[in-house]
Amino acid sequence: MTLRRGRLTTPTQDILVVGSVALDSVKTPFGEAVEALGGSASYFACSASHFAPVRIVAVVGEDFPDVHRALFKRRGVDLAGLETGKGRTFRWRGEYAAELGHARTLETQLNVFSTFHPRLDAGHRACPYVFLANIDPDLQLEVLGQMRDPLLTLSDTMNYWIARKPDRVLEVLRQVDVALLNEEEARALAGETQLVKAADRLIEQGARAVIIKKGEHGALFQAAGERFITPAFPVETLTDPTGAGDSFAGGFLGWLARCGRTDGAVLRQALAAGTAMASIAIEGFSPMRLAETDSEEISHRVEVLHRMVHFDLEPMF
Amino acid sequence: MTLRRGRLTTPTQDILVVGSVALDSVKTPFGEAVEALGGSASYFACSASHFAPVRIVAVVGEDFPDVHRALFKRRGVDLAGLETGKGRTFRWRGEYAAELGHARTLETQLNVFSTFHPRLDAGHRACPYVFLANIDPDLQLEVLGQMRDPLLTLSDTMNYWIARKPDRVLEVLRQVDVALLNEEEARALAGETQLVKAADRLIEQGARAVIIKKGEHGALFQAAGERFITPAFPVETLTDPTGAGDSFAGGFLGWLARCGRTDGAVLRQALAAGTAMASIAIEGFSPMRLAETDSEEISHRVEVLHRMVHFDLEPMF
Repeated sequence: MTLRRGRLTTPTQDILVVGSVALDSVKTPFGEAVEALGGSASYFACSASHFAPVRIVAVVGEDFPDVHRALFKRRGVDLAGLETGKGRTFRWRGEYAAELGHARTLETQLNVFSTFHPRLDAGHRACPYVFLANIDPDLQLEVLGQMRDPLLTLSDTMNYWIARKPDRVLEVLRQVDVALLNEEEARALAGETQLVKAADRLIEQGARAVIIKKGEHGALFQAAGERFITPAFPVETLTDPTGAGDSFAGGFLGWLARCGRTDGAVLRQALAAGTAMASIAIEGFSPMRLAETDSEEISHRVEVLHRMVHFDLEPMF
Repeated sequence: MTLRRGRLTTPTQDILVVGSVALDSVKTPFGEAVEALGGSASYFACSASHFAPVRIVAVVGEDFPDVHRALFKRRGVDLAGLETGKGRTFRWRGEYAAELGHARTLETQLNVFSTFHPRLDAGHRACPYVFLANIDPDLQLEVLGQMRDPLLTLSDTMNYWIARKPDRVLEVLRQVDVALLNEEEARALAGETQLVKAADRLIEQGARAVIIKKGEHGALFQAAGERFITPAFPVETLTDPTGAGDSFAGGFLGWLARCGRTDGAVLRQALAAGTAMASIAIEGFSPMRLAETDSEEISHRVEVLHRMVHFDLEPMF
């Protein structure tokens, strides 16, 4: 399969991410982080920038620490679209229980993010790859409408929007090339308990391709007639699951951008790259491990994943 | 890896299973079965017999229907070790909620199974492959002690025994080549929440290799220095998850017996074969679908699974 047969030549591999940049305070059984760098765009950018150039469109407050800006710059991330709004940066406070499955949100302060309205310049609009993180689906559609013939668009969402604007979330699914959802989101949006059926249902409802993220159980990619499954990379030092999905998205879209193709072979590798990046992200608080990792570690994880899932097909009977 | 370097030539591929043969009454959101064939040995035998000859050692009551005996015979299963005890056959009654994760046991009547003591004849003892289903670990050890230099031994267990006889369950794990456990059992026995760590811990405690069954999320094989993961085969018509684990065991051990080898390549294929058989089993009540399936359907599922997990490894950077 090839998701898109668009432009034959791509002038750049640039990836645009529109999402949140936040300050997270997170407590897990393995430690605690206070006002650390967080937000979907932050995790995505730190992950994808290992594969291709990334441009962020997001908003922070006047209190956003320079040290975080410096981190993005070390990763080569373009911050021309990182607006500084009047007021304080978006803050999230949450904790994870022993099972580490789901965060319990203790506090959300939207602050400058509550009036966020993505402003795209010509450079942003020309990016061939786009990740629409879990912002309001109306804003996602607005961004999509401004893009100039992108090669591949990827969306994320969250239960909050599925509960409030299910039709708009579905409209996003129809307009993007690949839609990311977690298990609960897929079940809620499709009205189906079984994940494979939920994925089928979303395709019937007009999505071109969906990836259902199953946390520690990996991810399922489904398009018409194509299904790939990858287990999660089993990490030994799980520290903080925050940002795993956005880190996965970064590895996935990053690899597609790096390859400049979206055929089945590359999509499968992209799932593996996403899986590797998610596994690295959750070994530390904030996107710190993502920022520090290198091509050797990433390649190694993809190789280990390959070894874990590969088997030779032989005639059985 | 090769789990065993035993006999160079194997006179037979025969598989011995010691477990339960029962009458199950099961209710799921998709239907109901009343006094259908059930029990670990039944599911295992119907599954493994597609790959190699199977001999059952188990006990039934005087009320055990001939129609079930006939089903085993159609599958070529040797019933010389299927004792008929005085009294009624083991009965289990359970139901599954919408999520289909875990059965709620409504009633267990052990009947003749309460005094079951496996009696092995010379033919049973000479079997090169053995599956010790989830019976009392003391009985499992007794069976192991009677076997004549088997090529590969596989055990299963259940929370009931882990709670009551954890040391004996661990002793079984040390004596068999591969130990099967589900997620909860692995966590309980290892005292570890994270599955990968639980598997590591069981290896540290003396297990040679473990397979942790994760239900709809597949299975994890772990031995010293080796880890394979397989997702579950996504079934469209999940009907009754009863017996999935034993059907998996049947495909796994059946494939090893058919190949006559236990190296890494064959172990990986065996995980795929087990996955295929489990997916077939849960598409119907009782082992009926397993009894009816054929080599074409089994091969096809293994091929689909291969296509779902395979990706090409290429230099990334």
